[in-house]
Amino acid sequence: MRVLSGIQPTGRFHWGNYFGAIQQYIALQDNDQAFYFIADLHALTTVREADTLRGFTRDAAIDLLALGLDPERATLFRQSDIPEVTELTWLLMTVTQMSLLEKCHAYKDKIAKGLAADAGLFTYPVLMAADILNYDSDVVPVGQDQVQHIEVTRDLAQRFNHIYDTEVFVLPKAQVLESSAKVPGTDGEKMSKSYDNTIEVFEATKKQRKKIMSIKTDSTPVEDPKDPESCAVFTLFKLFSTEEEQAELAGRYRAGGMGYGEAKKLLNEHALNYFAEARERRADLEAHPDRVEDILQTGAEQARRKAAEVLDRARTACGLKSRSH
Amino acid sequence: MRVLSGIQPTGRFHWGNYFGAIQQYIALQDNDQAFYFIADLHALTTVREADTLRGFTRDAAIDLLALGLDPERATLFRQSDIPEVTELTWLLMTVTQMSLLEKCHAYKDKIAKGLAADAGLFTYPVLMAADILNYDSDVVPVGQDQVQHIEVTRDLAQRFNHIYDTEVFVLPKAQVLESSAKVPGTDGEKMSKSYDNTIEVFEATKKQRKKIMSIKTDSTPVEDPKDPESCAVFTLFKLFSTEEEQAELAGRYRAGGMGYGEAKKLLNEHALNYFAEARERRADLEAHPDRVEDILQTGAEQARRKAAEVLDRARTACGLKSRSH
Repeated sequence: MRVLSGIQPTGRFHWGNYFGAIQQYIALQDNDQAFYFIADLHALTTVREADTLRGFTRDAAIDLLALGLDPERATLFRQSDIPEVTELTWLLMTVTQMSLLEKCHAYKDKIAKGLAADAGLFTYPVLMAADILNYDSDVVPVGQDQVQHIEVTRDLAQRFNHIYDTEVFVLPKAQVLESSAKVPGTDGEKMSKSYDNTIEVFEATKKQRKKIMSIKTDSTPVEDPKDPESCAVFTLFKLFSTEEEQAELAGRYRAGGMGYGEAKKLLNEHALNYFAEARERRADLEAHPDRVEDILQTGAEQARRKAAEVLDRARTACGLKSRSH
Repeated sequence: MRVLSGIQPTGRFHWGNYFGAIQQYIALQDNDQAFYFIADLHALTTVREADTLRGFTRDAAIDLLALGLDPERATLFRQSDIPEVTELTWLLMTVTQMSLLEKCHAYKDKIAKGLAADAGLFTYPVLMAADILNYDSDVVPVGQDQVQHIEVTRDLAQRFNHIYDTEVFVLPKAQVLESSAKVPGTDGEKMSKSYDNTIEVFEATKKQRKKIMSIKTDSTPVEDPKDPESCAVFTLFKLFSTEEEQAELAGRYRAGGMGYGEAKKLLNEHALNYFAEARERRADLEAHPDRVEDILQTGAEQARRKAAEVLDRARTACGLKSRSH
């Protein structure tokens, strides 16, 4: 079974990204085969400054490796290192009904807001289908908002298979990520870059402390009892602590006599501790960019072998010249 | 100066194709650099049967070579042998405004007829822009109906250059083909596959004769004088004859006493004679498919060298990894 995950390099990972998705992606690396790619071709639809994209792409690779993605167990590569994927995108484009793309969220939402869309945003489900189909992916773990795109992928695979009377493409299945991890931002709303309320996984320690100390809490006086379950600080603390630690802190909330500042300091300590090893690995990787590049190159070679095989099946099926003979 | 022409392999060339475009394309091979490609990726938007596409692609290559395209002077290649072109298509797609594509003829016409369009038809001007920009083409000879697509290409090149503050792309110019050559079909209307009135350049001789004998003429009796200028047979005869031969036949039309059958026989003889050498070359090429394949491979290697260079400039400009270092 091959599991495939793509991650857009559009900014540094925050706690919401990590606990909502990345942690679960990385846990899948013990599958038979796990492919992870940094979706820089997709990022081009929003990041339009070369140095910014280069930085985000490099950081995404380093962050994933620091957070435990193991190149011995999984294949990590840059999307743009696989030329086969844009070739397959065109083949799929010719069997993509306009009505299918017009229904897709990202485009519809932008149009509904009266914004001008680019063809990259409109056709990005086709590139995503190529990403998936190019590696005979069986399972694609996604958030609920991406389930539609997996349906589009299955549609395109079936339509191509049908038109050319072939079995070129494996139909992938979506594996919807559990969204049980509730990750509030510093304002108590869902942590999200668009709300400007994020705490990054590898935030500078001083800045992390400052952000944590700024988390919005209610105005219950220090001496009064407090409700841990309605407090963003406690909700975040749970992500980084054992059940005993949680029970202990909840007791102190309910007993009164502890200010929110105290809870925030505890949250900061636990968060630093939780990512301590990852921070060390990150510093090491950052000091050895060639090692990171080697990992990406090796990953790209592995991914291209598979991609070339699938592309060749598709080329032959529609009457283009096979490259393998 | 580099001249680029693409020819879609969607069927055998007929006299309308030859005198309206191909003859003029081939005449451009004496430019400094001339690139010709068989646009099989474009053809996928309409030809959806593998053997048919393979046949059309092979025939397009053989026909062009038989008609005088000289691989020593020009570069002939299959579009689908240049993976760089679909990569560049994606980069351009991310800077393509939807409104630009919505204005394009081919898509608008199909929608206006109430037909369902595929995304391949909708985005094909982006692939065409990549075809052109990938080789730093200076001049693109096109029919009047394709001028719009060259404008789209210039727009996309300028927008990419502007967004990334770069001079990556050379702005191509359209060279509008003279449409003075009037080529009527067997029914007297403009020769076109969609009217089912074509005579193919390499039509089997028996079939060619039959088609020519079926050309629609008026019912003027044999003995009466006839007007050559309003007769499709005479209009076609002009394509294959010298001015003296034309003056002589026109005289016989005007004098009366000659039936249309006589003129048709003359037309058939002259057409066979006109393409006699090309037919010989064609038979020879058809008997040596490896030679044709070698020419296409050599052409693809030359084209890829240029395409890789331009793609690398574009990749670097938008923050993807350069492949040349």
